[in-house]
Amino acid sequence: MHILVSNDDGINAPGIAALAAAMLPFGQVTVIAPKENRSAIGHRKTMHKPLRIDPVPFPVEGVRAYATSETPSDSVAVALLGFVKDPIDLVVSGINRGANMGQDLTYSGTVSAAFEAVIWHKPAIAFSLVDHSENADYSAAAAIARQIVALGLYRDLPPLTLLNVNVPALPLEQIKGFKVVRQGLRTYNDTLITRIDPYGRPYYWIGGEAPSGDTTEEGTDLWATHNGYVSLTPIHLDMTNYAMMRQLQGRGIESLKPGEIPSQT
Amino acid sequence: MHILVSNDDGINAPGIAALAAAMLPFGQVTVIAPKENRSAIGHRKTMHKPLRIDPVPFPVEGVRAYATSETPSDSVAVALLGFVKDPIDLVVSGINRGANMGQDLTYSGTVSAAFEAVIWHKPAIAFSLVDHSENADYSAAAAIARQIVALGLYRDLPPLTLLNVNVPALPLEQIKGFKVVRQGLRTYNDTLITRIDPYGRPYYWIGGEAPSGDTTEEGTDLWATHNGYVSLTPIHLDMTNYAMMRQLQGRGIESLKPGEIPSQT
Repeated sequence: MHILVSNDDGINAPGIAALAAAMLPFGQVTVIAPKENRSAIGHRKTMHKPLRIDPVPFPVEGVRAYATSETPSDSVAVALLGFVKDPIDLVVSGINRGANMGQDLTYSGTVSAAFEAVIWHKPAIAFSLVDHSENADYSAAAAIARQIVALGLYRDLPPLTLLNVNVPALPLEQIKGFKVVRQGLRTYNDTLITRIDPYGRPYYWIGGEAPSGDTTEEGTDLWATHNGYVSLTPIHLDMTNYAMMRQLQGRGIESLKPGEIPSQT
Repeated sequence: MHILVSNDDGINAPGIAALAAAMLPFGQVTVIAPKENRSAIGHRKTMHKPLRIDPVPFPVEGVRAYATSETPSDSVAVALLGFVKDPIDLVVSGINRGANMGQDLTYSGTVSAAFEAVIWHKPAIAFSLVDHSENADYSAAAAIARQIVALGLYRDLPPLTLLNVNVPALPLEQIKGFKVVRQGLRTYNDTLITRIDPYGRPYYWIGGEAPSGDTTEEGTDLWATHNGYVSLTPIHLDMTNYAMMRQLQGRGIESLKPGEIPSQT
C-alpha cells in the first residue's frame, strides 16, 4: 500500500511527522506538503504562477518527502497528476494543529487537501487534533490515525466523500471511544483590528479569540470531541441543500420569464 | 436596502461593475473586492498578515468601492466585521467570468465570498456567467441578477445556505428560463507541466484544458446551463454525507477501543 501524506501546517510541523510515522506499517509513505504554514488557506488551486517542488529531509526514516511552494491542495494535485510516480492508494492529511469541525472545513487547508484527493478519485482522510498549542502531543492522534486506516473504512467511502477525523486532546487511554457524527455549529469570534503604519496609512488585521461553537448539541463533531470522543464525519463535495431545492422548485420560479422584474418591487 | 458586492476576478473586472450597476435600483451599494484577480483562491482567511483596504474609483456612479489586498472572503469578512459602517442586508458576489458549478464551488473565490457572508449570518447570492472569454458580455447575467434579487428569494434561505446562480452565455431573449437544480459532476482536465528555469532548476505549472463535466445528467447545474437555462442551486456549508454517516454508524465503530488495531491487518 502506498500512502500520500500532506497537511497545512507545513512540512516541518510535528503533526505531519507523527502521521507519516503512523502510516509506515502499511507500506510505502510519500510526504508532500507546503514548505510553510498554510493554515486557513482554503481550497486554492494555483494556476497563475508556477510551483516549486523540492525534495527535503524528513524526520521519519523510510519516508520520501517533498516541500511545495504553494498550498496543501496544490501539493496533493501535483502528486496525483504525476509528480509522484508510484500509484497512490490513500491520501491522508494532518495531523492538524487544532480542530477542523463545523464551518471550519472550507477554510481548512488540511481538509482541502482531502477535497483535492477525492476530486482526483482517491480515498482521503483528514486528521486534526483539538489542541492548538505549540507543544501539543500528537501521539494519541497518531495511534487513532493508524487504527482508522487499519480498519479500512476509507475503502467504502462513496465518490467525492472523505472522512474527517478530530481527536480530543487527551492521552490515548483517556479517549472514550468513537462517535460517527455530523458537522456542528461553529461560532467565529473574529474582530477587525485597525492599526496605523509608520507612514500614517491604516492597515487591518483579522484578529480576535479562537473560534468556539455549540458543544451541547448531541451528534455533532463539536459535541463528540468536547465529551472525550474521536469524531468521524463523512464529508462530501455535494453541498446542495436538497430541502431548500425542493422548496424553491415549488414556487413557480421555473416558469418565470428571464429578466422580468415583478411589478411590486 | 444596502447591498455589498464582491468578486474574485478583482475590482477592475467588468463583471463586478455590471453586478453593482444591476443592484443600484434596490438602494445603497458598496463594493469591496480584491485589488487583483483571485480566481480559484478558495475560502482563505488571512490571519497571519495584515490587509490593506483602500477606497478606489469605480465605473458605476453612486457606488462606494474599496479594494483589498487579500481574498474575496477576506473582503466580505472585513466589511461585515465593521469596516463598512451601514448595516448590510444582502451580499452578492460576481458576476464571475466563467461558470462555478459542480465541484468548482470550494475552489471558487466568488462562491467563497458567499460562504463568508452566510457564516456571518447575511444572505448571499453568487452569480457566474458561463463564459470565460476576455470579452464576455455580462448584460444578460446582470438583468438576471437584478431579477433574482427583486424576487426576494434570498430572504428565505436557511442558515448557512447561499444561492448559487450560473447564467448561460446567451443574449437575454435566448435564455430559456430558470431551473432549480443540484450540483453536477465536473471533470477537471489539469495536467502537470514541468519546465526548467534559467538556472537549471525544475519548476511546475498546473495547466491543461478548461474543466468539462457531465451535461447529460438531468437536474444539475451543468445540464441546465448547457441547455440554455439559468441554474439556481441552494448551497449549504453542512457537507456531512448523511447516508454514509448512517452506514458507518451501523458498523460497530462506536464500540471500538481507541488505539486497538484489528488483528487481521
